[in-house]
Amino acid sequence: MNPIVLPVAVDAMGGDNAPSEIIKGAELAVEAGIPVLLVGHPDALSDISDIPTKFASEVIGMGEDPATAVRKKKDSSLVRSAEAVRDGEALAMISAGNTGATMASALLKIGRIRGVSRPAIATPIPVLGRANPNILLDSGANAECSPEWLVQFAEMGAVYARDRFNTDKPKIGLLSIGEEPGKGSPLIKEAFELLNDHDWQMRCSGEFIGNVEGRDLMNPDIDVVVTDGFTGNVALKALEGTAKAIVGALLDVFSSSPEAKEGASLLAPSLMPLYETLDPESVGGAILLGIKGVSMVSHGSSGPKAIFNAISTAYELSIDKHVEHLEQVIKR
Amino acid sequence: MNPIVLPVAVDAMGGDNAPSEIIKGAELAVEAGIPVLLVGHPDALSDISDIPTKFASEVIGMGEDPATAVRKKKDSSLVRSAEAVRDGEALAMISAGNTGATMASALLKIGRIRGVSRPAIATPIPVLGRANPNILLDSGANAECSPEWLVQFAEMGAVYARDRFNTDKPKIGLLSIGEEPGKGSPLIKEAFELLNDHDWQMRCSGEFIGNVEGRDLMNPDIDVVVTDGFTGNVALKALEGTAKAIVGALLDVFSSSPEAKEGASLLAPSLMPLYETLDPESVGGAILLGIKGVSMVSHGSSGPKAIFNAISTAYELSIDKHVEHLEQVIKR
Repeated sequence: MNPIVLPVAVDAMGGDNAPSEIIKGAELAVEAGIPVLLVGHPDALSDISDIPTKFASEVIGMGEDPATAVRKKKDSSLVRSAEAVRDGEALAMISAGNTGATMASALLKIGRIRGVSRPAIATPIPVLGRANPNILLDSGANAECSPEWLVQFAEMGAVYARDRFNTDKPKIGLLSIGEEPGKGSPLIKEAFELLNDHDWQMRCSGEFIGNVEGRDLMNPDIDVVVTDGFTGNVALKALEGTAKAIVGALLDVFSSSPEAKEGASLLAPSLMPLYETLDPESVGGAILLGIKGVSMVSHGSSGPKAIFNAISTAYELSIDKHVEHLEQVIKR
Repeated sequence: MNPIVLPVAVDAMGGDNAPSEIIKGAELAVEAGIPVLLVGHPDALSDISDIPTKFASEVIGMGEDPATAVRKKKDSSLVRSAEAVRDGEALAMISAGNTGATMASALLKIGRIRGVSRPAIATPIPVLGRANPNILLDSGANAECSPEWLVQFAEMGAVYARDRFNTDKPKIGLLSIGEEPGKGSPLIKEAFELLNDHDWQMRCSGEFIGNVEGRDLMNPDIDVVVTDGFTGNVALKALEGTAKAIVGALLDVFSSSPEAKEGASLLAPSLMPLYETLDPESVGGAILLGIKGVSMVSHGSSGPKAIFNAISTAYELSIDKHVEHLEQVIKR
């Protein structure tokens, strides 16, 4: 009874481990019954026989300026992936490559949802001891924001929390420097006033819980943290950098002496769930909210598991009509 | 030959563990030969016989609005501590209480160094595997900043890194969202241009190394990270929150089963240095840079060790003429 289901376009050339690990992730998805369209250089995809491919002669590098790269490299895997979504060849797109260029291709080729001022990057933040992560947005798309955009981020974040994590009435906090109303920059003070309005909370079934602080990113009593893309990106990287530094130092300690090694092996089974929660591979990719088609970005360091997670999330969100749900909530 | 050495004024009433733990910290300092002036409510100080005291009938609470509290509570321990510095009764002041109110009292009573546009809070950030922390400023005093203020923060941070940690030619990064010049908000782009100027780098013997990211706060190849007080506060709390969450989860794991307990006890000796580095008590207090007298703030949760560290740091910086060094570098 199912109509023909479109595939998820996967940028085979994006990421530190492209194309081999990306292709492995795509193969995992196909094995799990998810249709995939691999987009990449003919040389990289020459051995692929069991997955549909789309050729692109160019690759946008991690360090390239997004706007320039997308304009000049018309036959890049990223631009071709976005075109596949635009042209109805694919349901959704994912890339582990240049995040800015992914945003630029998606924005230029797929376009934004009507009424959305600016798309935002929504990144999952692990919450220790809870299955579902929090969502931080904008985590880097818009270095400068207006208070109205922050309200749209809150709306989109609420819909995303419901669609992706089944969060019933998402609790939404505004990232500031002090919990009391009136704390923070002029942007935050104005956004606070707008977010206090009940209209949008009704529309997206979210609940504004007021200002939250940097230390609340992993707070289990919050579901969505709203901020501008500059603050969000700094906060995200501070959190990731801290986690990585501590985990790295722990691993060093675990192999520092025979006693430490023995202790570590005794602890290993109990440590695994914590390690899993903190592992970027398990948390999965970020989404570009506000694009008229599900577009996900994975960590540059993504391995097959992370790519598989991103593909299956993009697929499920598309099938579940996430973009339509966003369209219903965004005021035109 | 020493002239009479002035004491460090210690706000006995500030912090979650005041006054008892603060007094214990002051006693440790006195035992180490550092003169202290305890400032607080007569009831709290009635048993003190071996340390000079100064009475204040009021206390400024952690949640109080700094400007209002300092204006209204003229006989508070914080205001009286700042007055002790102003009036030449004390060399320096420290408090584990309301950071904003400490800044407001210091600014109002001690005043700023001539030429300083805005004082900033400079907070030490632990660097795993290195003895000296990095310095993050502004970590919360000024929610909005001009590019010129960020240059002054860089100058003051460089002098502080040299005076406190003997860093020869401090490496100074500008917190942004991307390392390339031109990345970030308009504020950051303008500040980048100004910081690239060689004049101020010569004056303070610092070296501008360009943009750094949130993940670099603990980077051992950096000494000073410059940012506005909004971004700095969010980044600091994201880092602290992440470290606290992971350490808490680890401690839970360590007591989760007999095997885990055994493993933890084998690991304990090797884990101690890491734990020490991450412990806010060891890292010590933040300083209010730009005030015409050494003024330090300790974590609200400070115990005797943290208070002792703050007192001895404030004392050494004062004896070493830190404020004079700042005055020499700041352009009038």
